[in-house]
Formats: sequence, C-alpha cells, structure tokens
Amino acid sequence: MDEKWTRLQSRHAGDFAIFSVRLDRSVSPSTGFQREFTVMETVDWVNVIARTDAGEILLVRQFRHGTREYTLEIPGGGVDARDSSPEEAARRELREETGYEARSWVPLGVVEPNPAFQTNRCHTYLAEGASPSSKMSLDPGEEIEVILRPESEVLKMMEGGEIAHALVVAAFYWYGIHRAGRI
Amino acid sequence: MDEKWTRLQSRHAGDFAIFSVRLDRSVSPSTGFQREFTVMETVDWVNVIARTDAGEILLVRQFRHGTREYTLEIPGGGVDARDSSPEEAARRELREETGYEARSWVPLGVVEPNPAFQTNRCHTYLAEGASPSSKMSLDPGEEIEVILRPESEVLKMMEGGEIAHALVVAAFYWYGIHRAGRI
Repeated sequence: MDEKWTRLQSRHAGDFAIFSVRLDRSVSPSTGFQREFTVMETVDWVNVIARTDAGEILLVRQFRHGTREYTLEIPGGGVDARDSSPEEAARRELREETGYEARSWVPLGVVEPNPAFQTNRCHTYLAEGASPSSKMSLDPGEEIEVILRPESEVLKMMEGGEIAHALVVAAFYWYGIHRAGRI
Repeated sequence: MDEKWTRLQSRHAGDFAIFSVRLDRSVSPSTGFQREFTVMETVDWVNVIARTDAGEILLVRQFRHGTREYTLEIPGGGVDARDSSPEEAARRELREETGYEARSWVPLGVVEPNPAFQTNRCHTYLAEGASPSSKMSLDPGEEIEVILRPESEVLKMMEGGEIAHALVVAAFYWYGIHRAGRI
C-alpha cells in the first residue's frame, strides 16, 4: 500500500482570500474505487516561540473570527510570495505582530495542519533573545495585544486550556523536545 | 479589548462535503473598522490515543488527499449527528477505523484546529486496554492499514517527523501531561 492514488481530474471550486478549494477526482491503485475529494489549498504557515533573555514568552491576544473569541497564541501567519523562506516569514510575522526582533533563530519542527484535506505545512521556530526593536505593523483589521509571560505560566495556560490553538500546542511539543536536548 | 466584534452580515459562500464556507462582515468595537472574514464551518473532530495492555499504540496508515502522501496518524474523525457526544464519536471512529474497542476512556484535552478561521474544536481521548473486537467498518474509499507500535517508537516517529499531523502532535502533548500526572 505505497502507490499513490491517481488524480484523474482536478477542478478549482472556490477562492476565499485565505484559501482556495480544489476538487480532485482520484482513483485507488488497489481497488479501482474512485470519487471526488475536497482539498483546501493554502500557503505554508509559520509560528514563533519568542523568548526574552528574562525567560518570558511573547503571546498575542486578538479576536479570532473562526471561533468568535479572543485567543492567546504565539505570533504567526502565512508565508508570503515576498518571503524568501519560512524563517524569513517567521521573522517578518514576529516583527509585524509584536515589534520584536530576536538574536537567534532555531527551526523546531514542521507539522501538517490537516493532511486529510489541507495541502500545507506549518513551520515552528524558536526565537531567542527577543527584544522590542520597532513599531508593530499590522494589517487593516488586525488588533493585537502583545503579552509577555514567564515560560512556566505559559505552559500552565496551555494545560488549563487557556491557550488552545492546535498549532501553538504542537509548537510547544517541539519546544519541549528541544529543551530536553533531543533536537 | 474584551468586547467581541459585531457581525453585521453573514452569508453562505460554499458547501464542500467536509466543510462549508461562510463570509462574515464584522466591525471592530474599538475602531469601527469593518471587513469581510472567511470562516470555515465544520463539525467538531475527535482523535484517540489507543493503547494495548502490552503498551502498544494503534496507528493508522492511509493515503491523504490534502498532502497526497501516505500518513501515519492515530484514529480519528468527525463528530456525526448520530453521536451523542465527542467520546461516543471517538469510540465509533476507533471501532470503524481499526476494529478495536477499549476498556477505559479518559478525555485528555481539547484544541482548536485553527481559531483564526475554523469554527470547530478537536477532542482527544486516551483509550486504554485496547483490543480487537470486531471487523473494521470503513467508508467507501477509506483504505486503512492498522499498525501497532511500542509507545517509545511512536514518540520517536513524531520527533523524527514521520508522524506530522498537527492534531496528532497536540494529542501526544496532552498525553505527556497526563503521563506526568498533571491532568
């Protein structure tokens, strides 16, 4: 069971600013079964665990229109055409959303947000020695409050469900492995 | 910054089997800025870390049409109208995808797959004392290979990127906390 399904046909089914939808008619190599599968196409995403030398983590608080709640997350966003790499996008997002830059950047890991129907990946970085360097540069409609919290408190917020974004939880999974010296 | 954005208008913009798309025109309570936000509506999702008494974890291997690759994941899926609760959905998904049932079920945690534009949550369960009890019952087009691996090996597969689904990584984050006795 290693041969990929063959795509017989692929048609564009919608454009929605942050993603587009494609319908792939594919056939199983083992059974010949075929049907149409919904695929959500998006750019790759990045997120950043930014840590100050005082051991605080940068959180961003904003209203999220998916769940219609304010959330606590780490900075992040999409890789743009103008970004030369995911790391470049991560640096840009940190700067734009918080006005911070960082002394050192370490790639922590990559996850697939949902391989069942999403094409993209999410790249997580650790930014150490974060410090304020410029003004935030938000998109229209972005209203972001930057919050610094000691690492131990951030981990408790996650365990308590106050931080619930799956890609942030995955980022801290990678961070835990990094701290344990395994990556 | 606690008052929610007001939704002025909400219109249905597409139906795609596994999700639908809604466009919300919303206005900021603090600035009066308004624009349209894309929202992906789906049912809640569940996933299951199922562990045999021999300390093995159940993995499922299948072709995923989002990334067009075979993936290793834990069993999971969507909460159906016929499921009385997320736990009921998790039991059903484990049974359907693997033919296994389990002796005890523990809720580990809940994440939001992407609150920026997705409405739903993902509920993770730990199913202990998993054992084969029935035949798999797959949907048309589902071709799933069930793989049992020792827990230590599964953790290594995640660290090595062989298991990369963000919601699976988040599930093991919760599992780590549970094992440490913190939930």
